[in-house]
Amino acid sequence: MPSRKIFVDACLGKETPYTPVWMMRQAGRYLPEYMAIRAEAGDFLNLCHNPKKACEVTLQPIDIVGVDAAILFSDILVVPDEMGMDLSFVKGEGPKFSDPIKTEADLDRLIGGDEAASKLSYVFETIKLIKKELSEDIALIGFTGSPWTLATYMIEGEGTKTYNICKKMIYTNPTLLHNILAKVTEVVKLYMEKQIQSGIDVVQIFDSWAAAIEPSMYDEFSWKYMLEIAEYLKEKYPHIPIIIFPKGIPSFLDKVYGNFDVFGVDWSTPMELAKEKLGDKYVLQGNMEPCRLYSKEMTTKSVQDIQEIMGTSRHIFNLGHGILPDVPVENAIHFVKECQRVSKK
Amino acid sequence: MPSRKIFVDACLGKETPYTPVWMMRQAGRYLPEYMAIRAEAGDFLNLCHNPKKACEVTLQPIDIVGVDAAILFSDILVVPDEMGMDLSFVKGEGPKFSDPIKTEADLDRLIGGDEAASKLSYVFETIKLIKKELSEDIALIGFTGSPWTLATYMIEGEGTKTYNICKKMIYTNPTLLHNILAKVTEVVKLYMEKQIQSGIDVVQIFDSWAAAIEPSMYDEFSWKYMLEIAEYLKEKYPHIPIIIFPKGIPSFLDKVYGNFDVFGVDWSTPMELAKEKLGDKYVLQGNMEPCRLYSKEMTTKSVQDIQEIMGTSRHIFNLGHGILPDVPVENAIHFVKECQRVSKK
Repeated sequence: MPSRKIFVDACLGKETPYTPVWMMRQAGRYLPEYMAIRAEAGDFLNLCHNPKKACEVTLQPIDIVGVDAAILFSDILVVPDEMGMDLSFVKGEGPKFSDPIKTEADLDRLIGGDEAASKLSYVFETIKLIKKELSEDIALIGFTGSPWTLATYMIEGEGTKTYNICKKMIYTNPTLLHNILAKVTEVVKLYMEKQIQSGIDVVQIFDSWAAAIEPSMYDEFSWKYMLEIAEYLKEKYPHIPIIIFPKGIPSFLDKVYGNFDVFGVDWSTPMELAKEKLGDKYVLQGNMEPCRLYSKEMTTKSVQDIQEIMGTSRHIFNLGHGILPDVPVENAIHFVKECQRVSKK
Repeated sequence: MPSRKIFVDACLGKETPYTPVWMMRQAGRYLPEYMAIRAEAGDFLNLCHNPKKACEVTLQPIDIVGVDAAILFSDILVVPDEMGMDLSFVKGEGPKFSDPIKTEADLDRLIGGDEAASKLSYVFETIKLIKKELSEDIALIGFTGSPWTLATYMIEGEGTKTYNICKKMIYTNPTLLHNILAKVTEVVKLYMEKQIQSGIDVVQIFDSWAAAIEPSMYDEFSWKYMLEIAEYLKEKYPHIPIIIFPKGIPSFLDKVYGNFDVFGVDWSTPMELAKEKLGDKYVLQGNMEPCRLYSKEMTTKSVQDIQEIMGTSRHIFNLGHGILPDVPVENAIHFVKECQRVSKK
């Protein structure tokens, strides 16, 4: 069976000959081949804007590491950038928006809907190039940030430790925050639809900053917007699996609901707990602690433990967060081989 | 009943006329009076080293905000500093150690045991001054960082987003990490004993970076060292309540065990969950999301919700993390009054 079918089947909860595996940030800085292309591109954002080079780095981990799926190389922040927010990456400091949203007028100035989504044409072109180059056997995952996670950057203007500006908005100006989230959601819906039309096989929605919201407010300010996107896509493209990855919400897995296929489990959530609370409703993806990749022995131990908990169905192997830049490539290869080995039927 | 007795009784699970309240970082930057003293002291570390001024800022929130307990003004990093690690605070960047621990030889060079603990004399002097100035009615909380949390700074050399240096040590050199943790634990035991001998009424152990360790490794690398400290103190000073605050471990509350009095609940852990898993074994402290302090209305709502869950015993009101610098003082006062109002019997 080609591994694309295996990956898509696994996402949809069907029986597969082994449990497929990929890694968040698998097209990334731990690969010398990636660093070479990135140096050619000049900087990170140039690389996102260059379909030929973005295609090349997307394909690298397939050959080098042997994962069962490719994930589009891009960045979640291209969405607010094309909405008119002027993104830059300051070396050593991460992403910056020069003019964060403070008022309704700031929001009104941003481009919305299809006009913004259409400006992301370089992403769609990248997907089309990848589909030409990628073996038909391998699935291609497209992705987006969740509206909440995108909004945190749009409001704070940069990465933050405390999220106090956007959290202040939760408690003192929820209307403006909902308006921001609604506008981003509209763009993301159309953006993901265009990714599907360009050829992606699976959608992943990253809610990287899920854990910044207190449990009782999470549904209102993040989850329901992700579900709105999932429901829009599921209605039109029911064959395309949707993975939702909300990082760091182990304390209220009971509250997870809605129409999507795979729940991405981060490393802070024990796999036993995720299986108990969600295993009947969703396929689970994850969740090896990425720092285990520093040791082959500790990697093998974790892969075996996860395999023991999850058995051989309704599971996709992955890390519980992105791979770190200083991981040896051979250890990443070891992880992938171990996942495929232990789960083979 | 004097509120010192109320606070200590509440920690020990006895009936009290109302549920007492304090706030993590209550002696801090949101108070203009604190900023004035800090400016006089020159910098943060000078303030920690100056018993007279440290005493003054410790007392400020008692009068201004009306909390039921004072907490010693100091910093968790004075411990590694006096072990010989050369602490500095770089403006806008946080704490730095010039020479992080990489090897056994680096660790061997550090001062341990009573020699290190005795060097913290300015802390003990601060406590003695506070006890002279503080109304007999008010309890004084002393504190320390957990060995794991202190070790993260000693190994990384500064604050970190990924903790990848110390986590790499978990998986590739656990022996060195255990040796570091054991040496820090020895110093902390004696440090806390000297805090008790100097006059503190309650101990709090902050495991601020608990959430950096994957659940299956937490007991081995953090919890058991905190318990070693708690058991040492409980054996000699059974009347002194011990509060343990491990930030961000909602997914394995089932695994919490040992001889201490109060479990500090952070805001990411729903109070219902903490009560269900731990309410019979420990008094619970917490856990309002600190950003709710931006709104009086949202503060009142949260205080009522927490009160409804916890009832009027086996609880201490607090925030689920430290108060932020841009919170209006009147909102902090409102929080304290609301806690005392809703819980009055």
